[in-house]
Amino acid sequence: MEKTSPNEDADNRDPARPARPRTFPTREAGVRDRQPMDRSVDFPVSVVLPAGGTGERTGLQTPKQFCSVLGRPLISFTIQAFERVSWIQSIVVVVAKEYMDLMTDIIQRFQHKKVQVVPGGKTRHRSICNGVLALGEATREEGQMLAADRAKVVIIHDAVRPFVEEDFLYKIAMSAKEQGAAGAVRPLVSTVISTTSEGYLDHSLERAKYRASEMPQGFTYDVIHQAYQRCTESDFEFGTECLHLALQYCGTNAKLIEGPPTLWKVTYKRDLAAAESIIKETLSQSACIITGGSAQAVTLADALQKAVGALDTELDITPDLMGDNSKYLLEEWNFIQISVSHSCLSEVEAILMDLEAVNRALLHPVVVIWVHLNGLDELSVSRKMAVPAAIRDLASAAKLRNILVYGIQLHQSADTERWERSVLRVAEITSTLIRDRSPALVGQLLQA
Amino acid sequence: MEKTSPNEDADNRDPARPARPRTFPTREAGVRDRQPMDRSVDFPVSVVLPAGGTGERTGLQTPKQFCSVLGRPLISFTIQAFERVSWIQSIVVVVAKEYMDLMTDIIQRFQHKKVQVVPGGKTRHRSICNGVLALGEATREEGQMLAADRAKVVIIHDAVRPFVEEDFLYKIAMSAKEQGAAGAVRPLVSTVISTTSEGYLDHSLERAKYRASEMPQGFTYDVIHQAYQRCTESDFEFGTECLHLALQYCGTNAKLIEGPPTLWKVTYKRDLAAAESIIKETLSQSACIITGGSAQAVTLADALQKAVGALDTELDITPDLMGDNSKYLLEEWNFIQISVSHSCLSEVEAILMDLEAVNRALLHPVVVIWVHLNGLDELSVSRKMAVPAAIRDLASAAKLRNILVYGIQLHQSADTERWERSVLRVAEITSTLIRDRSPALVGQLLQA
Repeated sequence: MEKTSPNEDADNRDPARPARPRTFPTREAGVRDRQPMDRSVDFPVSVVLPAGGTGERTGLQTPKQFCSVLGRPLISFTIQAFERVSWIQSIVVVVAKEYMDLMTDIIQRFQHKKVQVVPGGKTRHRSICNGVLALGEATREEGQMLAADRAKVVIIHDAVRPFVEEDFLYKIAMSAKEQGAAGAVRPLVSTVISTTSEGYLDHSLERAKYRASEMPQGFTYDVIHQAYQRCTESDFEFGTECLHLALQYCGTNAKLIEGPPTLWKVTYKRDLAAAESIIKETLSQSACIITGGSAQAVTLADALQKAVGALDTELDITPDLMGDNSKYLLEEWNFIQISVSHSCLSEVEAILMDLEAVNRALLHPVVVIWVHLNGLDELSVSRKMAVPAAIRDLASAAKLRNILVYGIQLHQSADTERWERSVLRVAEITSTLIRDRSPALVGQLLQA
Repeated sequence: MEKTSPNEDADNRDPARPARPRTFPTREAGVRDRQPMDRSVDFPVSVVLPAGGTGERTGLQTPKQFCSVLGRPLISFTIQAFERVSWIQSIVVVVAKEYMDLMTDIIQRFQHKKVQVVPGGKTRHRSICNGVLALGEATREEGQMLAADRAKVVIIHDAVRPFVEEDFLYKIAMSAKEQGAAGAVRPLVSTVISTTSEGYLDHSLERAKYRASEMPQGFTYDVIHQAYQRCTESDFEFGTECLHLALQYCGTNAKLIEGPPTLWKVTYKRDLAAAESIIKETLSQSACIITGGSAQAVTLADALQKAVGALDTELDITPDLMGDNSKYLLEEWNFIQISVSHSCLSEVEAILMDLEAVNRALLHPVVVIWVHLNGLDELSVSRKMAVPAAIRDLASAAKLRNILVYGIQLHQSADTERWERSVLRVAEITSTLIRDRSPALVGQLLQA
């Protein structure tokens, strides 16, 4: 897929978002990475994801790692972030006992691989320790494995930091292997001050000397295992920092690596909205427009490409989804089918079948927009009446399979100005439908 | 307006959102506060809002305080948060010289009162200092004012923390008056660690002893004025903490007050999405449904009240917006007009005129949804065809005045199950339209 993106060098790109958003969805879907890392990790790396938190700070009843973002629990996004990294061999998710079944369901439903679920302990450190021990056991259980197969490096991450990227994980893994321990840090966003016992200002810290300790962190298996073997009950109860245990009990001085803003943690309910907006923006980077090859449709597609591009969604135009063009089925999250004159939904039905065949909507809702271009000679009224019911039925069925179908009706016009206004309206509506991914509006036949 | 809200005690309320969201829109609009504070502040309080930042961290070209949220710059929301507090007498906004005109436009456009715009300095401290000096000058300029009229307490806040609430401002103002200085603090969200010059872990701080210093902060005029008179060039260049200057140059030990999560700061682009979601959620807390008094409409309204309530929007039912019921025009952000059988938009036109008369859509987009209930005996086809064009024209005009008009068509049905399904669909569509406030979809006549 050759694209020249007008946005690639836009300097209003959010640093808190994935660095190469165009490739993010592709990598997510497990499809080949178009910009492969020329980095190899020649030692086994495993991940421990403590997810035992109760999410008090979100103010939600559901712990935040299980909160749904676009119909999928947040933790599934985090698992996916690791799953797509070829050199990570296994992921241990540690959850509170009462969420073991839910977690197992999530893994089945979203077909996650490489994942093992382990019951958590009463504190964060006990949970992480359970995860680390499970890594050792897994290896023992599988019998006469060579020592080389046991994780050499263990990466510990939070279940509620779903946007971690491969290149940063690589840095952590390599530093951990070399130094024994490595951790992500970020600059402090607020001044840190110490308070007197009466609640007055004691002093403020010199910002430049301090950092916020974030996740992920990496350790050699031996260091993290030994740290937990040697640490005290009090460490298990009140400790917060694995890096500190590695220093205290193994004499391992962690390498600190400045992480990108994408490492942020979903803490409050507002952060769920922020996470959703990042994911939605990523999914709406591009769409594929299918013309069927008719000249009228191609003209409309060209006009839409320009107008929607201005709204930050890049359109690829293709006559169909067959042969080489079937690649779009694996790469795009949004499809726009243009039908000229005949108000039949068979083309949309074909796309839905294709999408299902490749299981495309497993991880994210896929948007399919039917743009119906009426010729200058209008259809009979009776025929027109049948369309809304047909698209509604189609959309209801598709919604159950995580595919969101919408319709837009557009009338051909000999008046240029009027026609351009209509095209612009189609572009705006299309862009909104793709961006909002609103389940309540599926099956509507909107008027441009 | 008497309401029994099923949400009032819901424990899934986000602590990061306004504590009394039902009253937030009302207070915003400058209408009487239904839950008045029984707190009086008997000394003059002014506010300095440094807004000179360039917003590097958002990754946006526009500084974040000027980024638009629902069509209005973020800083306008922050100004509004202070403007609605009766005991705050003036607000000085300090902006970079190149943004003076923009800021003045914003103040005019959104009819802000009590605001003075002052050019900023090169650093944050110079900007705040300019603001403080402007407060003194304003008083001098107005001539022979009594000393009592000069701000006794100055509150300093960030332009990018729009959700600050009156009760917390009260605490800061009272403590500042009493102690000379007071500041908001929040628990640390990450462990803070100190690093060696080679980038290794030196030690981690004991979390319980430290706090993140946030905004707002309050000072007596004399303390903050003196602190800036006495501090060094180096403080102006590199200092970050006003509380620190007060301690160092006036010996004033600031009282630290634990603030609510609503004090959070818009730092990254993702935070703009979070802010927008909070504002949208606040605006969609309730809606007013106008029945016109017909029995069919009342039945539908009752059914919708139940269905939409389950979707977290509370519906008030009223026959009209006249007399006592005109209060809804000042209190609600969402209106649902039910029209039975006659497909005429005159009722919607009347609402639009009423809303304009009270300037309701000045600060937030107002949503008006026309629910058209067709009787069992259908309208003539020709009449039906005219409706989409009529609502589209009406909506286009209203959109220019920040009112978003949508239509939903619903068919009466003798089949109970079918009818209930339709009502549920109206509820879902209504809820989505109110929540998303999508400008691209105005004028659409959606089918339930």
